[in-house]
Amino acid sequence: MDYVLRCTRCHYVLPTIPRQTVCPRCQGVLFVEFSTDRELPSDWISVADPTLWRYALVLPPEPRFRISLGEGFTPILTLKKHLLLKDEGRNPTGTFKARGAALAISMARQFGIRHVATATAGNAGGAAALYAKAAGIKATIIMPRSAPEVNRLEVRIAGARLELVEGTIIDAGQRLAELCRADSTIFPLSTMQEPYRVEGKKTMGYEIWEQRHALPENIIYPTGGGTGLVGIWKAFQELKQFGLLEKIPTRMFAVQSTGCAPVVRAWRSHKEVCEPWASPTTVAPGLCVPRPYGDYLILRTLRESRGGAVAVPDGGILKAMRELGHRGIVACPEGAATFAAYQQLVEDGTISPKDETLLLMTGSGYKYLASYQK
Amino acid sequence: MDYVLRCTRCHYVLPTIPRQTVCPRCQGVLFVEFSTDRELPSDWISVADPTLWRYALVLPPEPRFRISLGEGFTPILTLKKHLLLKDEGRNPTGTFKARGAALAISMARQFGIRHVATATAGNAGGAAALYAKAAGIKATIIMPRSAPEVNRLEVRIAGARLELVEGTIIDAGQRLAELCRADSTIFPLSTMQEPYRVEGKKTMGYEIWEQRHALPENIIYPTGGGTGLVGIWKAFQELKQFGLLEKIPTRMFAVQSTGCAPVVRAWRSHKEVCEPWASPTTVAPGLCVPRPYGDYLILRTLRESRGGAVAVPDGGILKAMRELGHRGIVACPEGAATFAAYQQLVEDGTISPKDETLLLMTGSGYKYLASYQK
Repeated sequence: MDYVLRCTRCHYVLPTIPRQTVCPRCQGVLFVEFSTDRELPSDWISVADPTLWRYALVLPPEPRFRISLGEGFTPILTLKKHLLLKDEGRNPTGTFKARGAALAISMARQFGIRHVATATAGNAGGAAALYAKAAGIKATIIMPRSAPEVNRLEVRIAGARLELVEGTIIDAGQRLAELCRADSTIFPLSTMQEPYRVEGKKTMGYEIWEQRHALPENIIYPTGGGTGLVGIWKAFQELKQFGLLEKIPTRMFAVQSTGCAPVVRAWRSHKEVCEPWASPTTVAPGLCVPRPYGDYLILRTLRESRGGAVAVPDGGILKAMRELGHRGIVACPEGAATFAAYQQLVEDGTISPKDETLLLMTGSGYKYLASYQK
Repeated sequence: MDYVLRCTRCHYVLPTIPRQTVCPRCQGVLFVEFSTDRELPSDWISVADPTLWRYALVLPPEPRFRISLGEGFTPILTLKKHLLLKDEGRNPTGTFKARGAALAISMARQFGIRHVATATAGNAGGAAALYAKAAGIKATIIMPRSAPEVNRLEVRIAGARLELVEGTIIDAGQRLAELCRADSTIFPLSTMQEPYRVEGKKTMGYEIWEQRHALPENIIYPTGGGTGLVGIWKAFQELKQFGLLEKIPTRMFAVQSTGCAPVVRAWRSHKEVCEPWASPTTVAPGLCVPRPYGDYLILRTLRESRGGAVAVPDGGILKAMRELGHRGIVACPEGAATFAAYQQLVEDGTISPKDETLLLMTGSGYKYLASYQK
């Protein structure tokens, strides 16, 4: 389907040209925008395809450039009446990051890019490395020295180049900028600074819509960079645009760790952007993002959906991991945080246990077995 | 759909009664057999369901007893022209064992069983523990002390009872028999000694059929207990029975490790059963089964399908893991063995690289990261 790129901040529209990162005018996040004058055919979903490519008609890559490791179309489990959990740990590379990597690398291939690089808290780097390798594209992955060993290992399994830096994802980002200045052939894939990763993440929203028929009243998403949360909201808008959804009943909730909660702090003080979080520390590496690039988009999503933001302590996250284990689910800490947040939001009356709530388990606990030994 | 249990050895037919293990006459493996006088409705597949329950009409459990962690409907990747890989690592608990556990535990629940136990090389135990916990059924898991740490850990995450024994899965099986003699309320779930695990595994065959339209010429399966291999073959027979498949073009190949290859040895000497393999040792724990209970069924499948059996050395398995990593796939050793076997079978002319071959990657390499460090 035809599309343009539109800046989510200043609304500047540009055609899809190769190597586009952020808005050339205001550095805002660029989003794919489809032309609205076309209805989808009734059989637009490839129902026998067990991946996110079942929705290929609303995804940017041309079919011949597609790189897939079988990502997406993850199941939704029922934890109890009115409480659902979408298990993103079932993606290749063990997390929802595979969705973004599949789209970003397919587009990189379409644009003839030969070398990608990313700064990451961990899982996005593993995914980028494995997808780039599958596409025959060189990858340089930069992560904090404190990133989980499993993420360093998956970069090595892919045979990609790994750079470890002191500090947080912000320091990794600085190193990435340096690298790209020194070598202009390198294309940076960082969260929200590349227009297509969110196109992969949005398919979570399409799946929730297809699998559940009716959208849940609440969605709780563990929020680091925020692409997943914002992507699901984008999907719901598109479904409305295509006439497949009349109204969107869903409130979007961001959960962070009390050890790194820039979005929660901004939300509570009614700010439209985040202040950087000083000295972030949490058992959930994916939540260790002191200031998300797309902060204004995350906060806009929470506002537009009449949702909210909540922080949970590490102790609550570890307890939630154990509780989910006793329901048969091997949870990652970020995903377990949504279960802790749910209990908190019900307790303080923000959400009703009689409304349907869907938690996003963003990764597999098998990548975090050490956390269970704590 | 109505069904009976039929012994795969002496053909004795019995109704589905609770707590049935093996054939009461000859101790053969019992299989579900559907009545043939019914055609499936055209919309029999629940196409929006991303799990094996999309084929619920050909699965024994009554819907209200169903326990699901979202197993099945895994993707098929293209490694190169004519070479496919079905990624079973994408199941909950990280392996295809989840399929068997989902069915066995759903049926245990339907029969009112309160305590299950299993003897396992590792992954089946983790799966049984997590599914039993999800169903509120007590589980005792017996595995060799040499089983991977990840499997011990997942049993603990589920909060199930773990017993470690010296020796192999055979010793674990003896301990299980002891346990069941001492406490008749315990129901044993061991491979091929319970009629419903294979019903879960067979869904791999239904998926290959649904996802690929045409069946591949060759399927290579890493064979320990053999339920997966035999289950896929059962699915193809059922699809023929239901008129959904005219003929079955697929040759089934079993791959084992040179350190434990009872099926390969029996196949080569045209035997119908296996001799126990003395002192088994391999980097692929799932292949460490010195004498599979369903040996005669495995060998029958290879014969009926005009397939074969091949053994690969540990070095070949580890090399295949690295090669698959360089294609973006984090492989388990058992699954990597199929890639090594493919190369061997093409080299010796047994299979043509121009025919379509499908490899079963039975588990996620994220459960075996230590193997990559070797």
